[in-house]
Order: sequence, then C-alpha cells, then structure tokens
Amino acid sequence: MDSSMINFKVIKKSKLSRARLGILQTPHGVVQTPALVPVATQAVVKTLTSDQVVATGSQLLIANTYHLAIRPGASTVKKQGGLHKFMHWPKPLMTDSGGFQVFSLGFGRELGTNKVITNQVKTRIKSGQQPKNLVISDDGVEFRSHVDGRKLFLGPRQSIRLQEQLGADIIYAFDECPPPQASRTYTQEAVGRTHRWAKVCLQTKRSNQALYGIVQGGRFRDLRILSARFMAGLDFNGYGVGGEFGQHKINMSRMLNWVTDELPPAKPRHLLGIGHLSDIPLLIKAGIDTFDCIVPTHYARHGTAFTSQGQLDMYKQIHKNIRQPLDTKCSCPVCSQYSRSYIYHLLKSHELTGLSLLTFHNLYFFNATVAGWRKLIKQGKL
Amino acid sequence: MDSSMINFKVIKKSKLSRARLGILQTPHGVVQTPALVPVATQAVVKTLTSDQVVATGSQLLIANTYHLAIRPGASTVKKQGGLHKFMHWPKPLMTDSGGFQVFSLGFGRELGTNKVITNQVKTRIKSGQQPKNLVISDDGVEFRSHVDGRKLFLGPRQSIRLQEQLGADIIYAFDECPPPQASRTYTQEAVGRTHRWAKVCLQTKRSNQALYGIVQGGRFRDLRILSARFMAGLDFNGYGVGGEFGQHKINMSRMLNWVTDELPPAKPRHLLGIGHLSDIPLLIKAGIDTFDCIVPTHYARHGTAFTSQGQLDMYKQIHKNIRQPLDTKCSCPVCSQYSRSYIYHLLKSHELTGLSLLTFHNLYFFNATVAGWRKLIKQGKL
Repeated sequence: MDSSMINFKVIKKSKLSRARLGILQTPHGVVQTPALVPVATQAVVKTLTSDQVVATGSQLLIANTYHLAIRPGASTVKKQGGLHKFMHWPKPLMTDSGGFQVFSLGFGRELGTNKVITNQVKTRIKSGQQPKNLVISDDGVEFRSHVDGRKLFLGPRQSIRLQEQLGADIIYAFDECPPPQASRTYTQEAVGRTHRWAKVCLQTKRSNQALYGIVQGGRFRDLRILSARFMAGLDFNGYGVGGEFGQHKINMSRMLNWVTDELPPAKPRHLLGIGHLSDIPLLIKAGIDTFDCIVPTHYARHGTAFTSQGQLDMYKQIHKNIRQPLDTKCSCPVCSQYSRSYIYHLLKSHELTGLSLLTFHNLYFFNATVAGWRKLIKQGKL
Repeated sequence: MDSSMINFKVIKKSKLSRARLGILQTPHGVVQTPALVPVATQAVVKTLTSDQVVATGSQLLIANTYHLAIRPGASTVKKQGGLHKFMHWPKPLMTDSGGFQVFSLGFGRELGTNKVITNQVKTRIKSGQQPKNLVISDDGVEFRSHVDGRKLFLGPRQSIRLQEQLGADIIYAFDECPPPQASRTYTQEAVGRTHRWAKVCLQTKRSNQALYGIVQGGRFRDLRILSARFMAGLDFNGYGVGGEFGQHKINMSRMLNWVTDELPPAKPRHLLGIGHLSDIPLLIKAGIDTFDCIVPTHYARHGTAFTSQGQLDMYKQIHKNIRQPLDTKCSCPVCSQYSRSYIYHLLKSHELTGLSLLTFHNLYFFNATVAGWRKLIKQGKL
C-alpha cells in the first residue's frame, strides 16, 4: 500500500475534543482538513461550471460510481482521460463505491418515494429480509438500472474496476449500507458482507489510487466497534464511516466517537453523506476529517440560502424589495453583486441562473464555515 | 435632445456595401459596432451570471419592458437602483418598448403555439381585423398579463415611464408590430399609430436616456420608406427597425436597404429581433449597426451548438465519445476545458450546467463571428 499517492498529516490535535487539523496531500493538490466535500453525483456540481466550483473554495469533490457507471459508463470516462479531465476538475477527487446507491435504490423503492413505510415493508426489514429489487449474495448485488431497467451486477471486484476506470485520487471499498430501520440480525449480516468485500477490494485494486475502507454497523455499538477494529486491521489508506444515522441523529456524536476511537489516528476519516450545518461542529469534534453532503447544493435548488443569520426561503415574497445581499457578512461574489430582490425575481421567473447563484453562495458559505472551524482548532478553541 | 448621453461615430464606411464600422458611446461604456445584442428578457441572459456574460465578449444587452413591467414591476427595479444595478450588468443596456410582446401575445395566441394558422385567423388578419385578446386604440393597447391574467394597458406614455424607471442607456419608442401576414390596410393603420405614438414618446420622455424611434411598414416598400422618412424627421438618438420579415427573409437585404437609405447616416440603427448566423452578414451589409436575437441563447437551451463547422445537435449519440471540444477553432473557455463527450453527458443527464456551457459558447461564438465581420469592414473587404 505504499504505492498510495495520498499522504495525510495531523498538524494539530484539539485538547478539548477529538477534533484535529490536517493536511491531505493528493496527486491533484492538498486538502486542508476538516473539509466539506461537495457532491458531484453525475460528474458535475449541479448548476455550476468547474471554474465556479473552484471559486467557492471547494477543495475536494465526490462523484458517484453508480451513476457514472450507468451513464455515461466508466469506460467512456476512461476514454476521455479519466474523471478529472472529463469534468475539468483540477483538484482532489473521490468516488464512492456505488454501494449506497444500489442498496438505497433497493430499499428506497419499497419504502416509497414519499418515505411512508408500509407495515409490510417494516416487517420485512425488521425480520432481516432483503429488498425485493435486489438480489444480494456474497459476491455482490444484482439490481436494475434506474435509467433503462436493465439488470446489472455490482460487487467489490466490479466496484474497484469501475473506480479504477474513473480514476479519482481516493476510492472506496464496496460496502453494504442497510437502512436505518434494519434489525440487528440484518445489520450484522451486512457488516459481515462488508468486511469480506473489504478484503476483496484490497486484493483487487491494481492502481495507485488511495483506497478507503468503510465502517458500518448501524446504531449498534458493538457492531460499530467490531467494524471499526476490523477495518483498522486492514491496510487501507483511510476510512469512511457509512450508514444513515436516521432518527438517532441526536446521538451522532456518541456513535461517531465509538468509531473514531478505534481508527488509526494517523489516517484520514471521511463521514459519508452527513453535513447539515448543525452537524458540522459535532462531526468535526468527533474526529472526522472530511465529509460529503448534498445539503448546500440540494437546498439551493429548492430556494434555500444558508446565511450567518440562519436559513432564508428565497421564494418568499418578503424578499421582493430587499436590496441587501443574501448575507451581509458573506464575501462571496453573489453577495457582493446581487440583492435578495434580484434572486427572488430570478426564482419566481423560473430562471436557472437563480439556482446557480444560490448553489454558489451556499457552497461558499459552507466552505467558509468549515474554514472557521479549522481556525478554531488552530486556536485551540474547539 | 442634446441631453442624450449616447454618442455615435461612424469610423469607416464600406465601399463595397452599406456596411459601417462604428463606436457607440454610452454612460456605461463603449460598443464597437456592428454588434450582436444578446437578449436578457427577464433581466438575465438565461442560464448565465452577469460575469459570465461579460466573459462571452458581449457589449450591450437588451431587456424586456413588457416582462419586467409584469414581473418584478418597473417600480421594484427602480427601487433597486435601476436595471444595471438590479442585474449587476456594468455595460451598456437597452430596453425594448414592450410593443412587440403585447402585439405578438395578442396575435400569437390566435395563431396557436404550433404556428399553424387557421383559415379563420388568416382571414381576420388579412381583412385588417384586430386580434381578439387585445383592444387597440389610439392611446395604446389593452391586454391581459400572461402571468396572472389581469387587465393591463400599455401605450406610448406608459412605455416611456416604465423604461425611465428601468433606466437603461437606450430606450425605444412604443410601436405596433403587426404579424407578417398582415394586410396592407392593417399595416398602414399600424404604421399610422406607430408614427403618432413616436411623437408622444418624444414629448413624454423626461430622462436623459437615449431614445430610438422604430421604423415599421412590413413588407410594403412604400410604407417602409414612408415610415423611415417620418422617423428620420423626428429628433431621435437612433433608430430601430421592427417588424418580422417572415417568409420574405430572402428579401431581407432589399427590405433593409429601403429603410437604411432613408435614415440619417450619423445615427445608430438597430435591427429588432433578427440574427440567425446567416442573416448577420446581410444585415451588416445593409447598414445595420446593432441587432438583438435570441438565436445563440435559445438554441443553446435546446442543445444546439454553433461552430465554425456548422450546427451541432449535442443530444445526438454521435458525440458520446468525442474528446474534441464543440469547436476546435474556438478560443472560449468552454472549448478549452470541456469535450463534446462531457457536454453530451450533461445534456443526457439533465444537468443544467450543460445548458450554461452551450449558452456561453454560443454567445462567445456569435460575438467572435461579428468581431470577424468588423475586421473585414476595417480591411475594406465587406
């Protein structure tokens, strides 16, 4: 594993919490940690150009192996010179394993798009049954494409091959991510598969991309610790922490501490798919170095701006005549150039530029917020 | 009219055609003519930020008085410090009179969105009847808002007041733009109203914005000449040429020459709403200085890229694996950063960024093309 082309250094460890300040070096430059990782699901941060994403202060993106494997296909991306070149992203890049999407599509369809869980489905999940749309075996998962319905198979070998074709700096071992309602029995089985698959991923990888193993275990303390110890014992370049925290978010700090206490302190830790503004200090204090989340970009596309004064619903008429920017304390170009009145007008007029401006501001605001937390660690105040 | 804050100089007059090279000075900077005027209907060039529009080489935009009067309202824009400030556009800006939209909405609804004209409607237009959705009088037009259906009235006084509130550098007199199928009788009446309204506009204007009169007259030589002579006799700062050329586009050069031969050579001439790539050399050779057109932006949003090798339909699968940019001869950032393969992927994946990239490239390409025509005039080759 010495061929890995990332290098991680903890510069400062907080005395008040598990928080740490770090430098993650990659073939495409350096990431100052803790860092937000904006989501580029389909090889693009929705509504922005890559130049704009750079200008938001984003340091590292995560793209989606499942989506890119289905469209345009990992081989297409490879023929285009890899993901960095394809999407014109000059900075560090990760791809997820595809596991989360495959499993959430499986359960997600049964749970229904409106998230109302029928008793029937509840019973099946609790009893440890597998979702109807998937066939899970020790080799991986058979599922259907959400685009054209064709049968596909994804397992640890396939995931690594796909991620090698995509060519990000950091890739992830294939894992099973059960839904938050999953029973202990089901979660234990999923952890078992995830551990076996982790070894297969390490054996499969030929590239010198950095490979992160993913800790699972749901809400069960012993399973989380078991999984973290198991992964720590394997020669990964870093670690992801997966699984939804669901209704138990209030306990997120405690659950993260179970994991980070077991992981090797010299290696980077990434929290997958978590990052509401209120979560960020908690996960940083639990010793997480990087975390990806759709919140800043997804909320932007629904008209929400994050500001130092709280969230703004920019579709509300109250903004119609407000000359002030989204956030008077923000130094982003959107806030120095445009009023709330203008952004409200764009949204009401169905102008896509409104969504781009909100996405830009939200990413800038989140990145600046995380930079603020880094500063506090440096000053020994977190 | 000496209070007008524009100044136009013809630098060079072609010996081979009516083409001329000019400099149009405005309170917000200089426009090198001939120039394309991109359309910012709702105070935004669709899908782009104002910084991006500047980077396409655009010199002058036209915004839409009708749309802005309805949403967000001209008084809202005024409260925000005027249109330049509202949309953060630092360069020269014009607003149209609103006439075209009011009249085209009236006839447009009857003609049907699919442009199939029923014989009934044809008969009514040819017989000189007015559209059902409008009540046209000597004072202006009563119509209904396309947003909420409320009754509105727009005439020369209202148009000037609205355009003064919007505060562009160049504004237009209120005119009636009949459809291309209109009879001679109808067109003659419309020209009469347009002429009376032109005088009212000149009397109404209090600001020091530049005011352009609009020449109408449809496809009728004598009416065009009559209208051009009438407008030339009034103290406008420049002239618009309005009316659709419809099926008679092949005769566009001839029809434009009727008009430009009558207009004062020292004043700028703007052609309203025309600018397919193939039209551009024709209208420049007819002595037009500026022209607005939705072609580069509208086509982009439907997946069409304009290139030195012709048009590309970027939704076509042929582009899936093409590493080349949209146009190997184009020096825009889209062409230096992204492949056709990537843009195809974005479009197929419904990513809005794909539309922004195509809009950027098309505007850049059109502006570069027009710059090429300017160079030819300079070299005495057009």
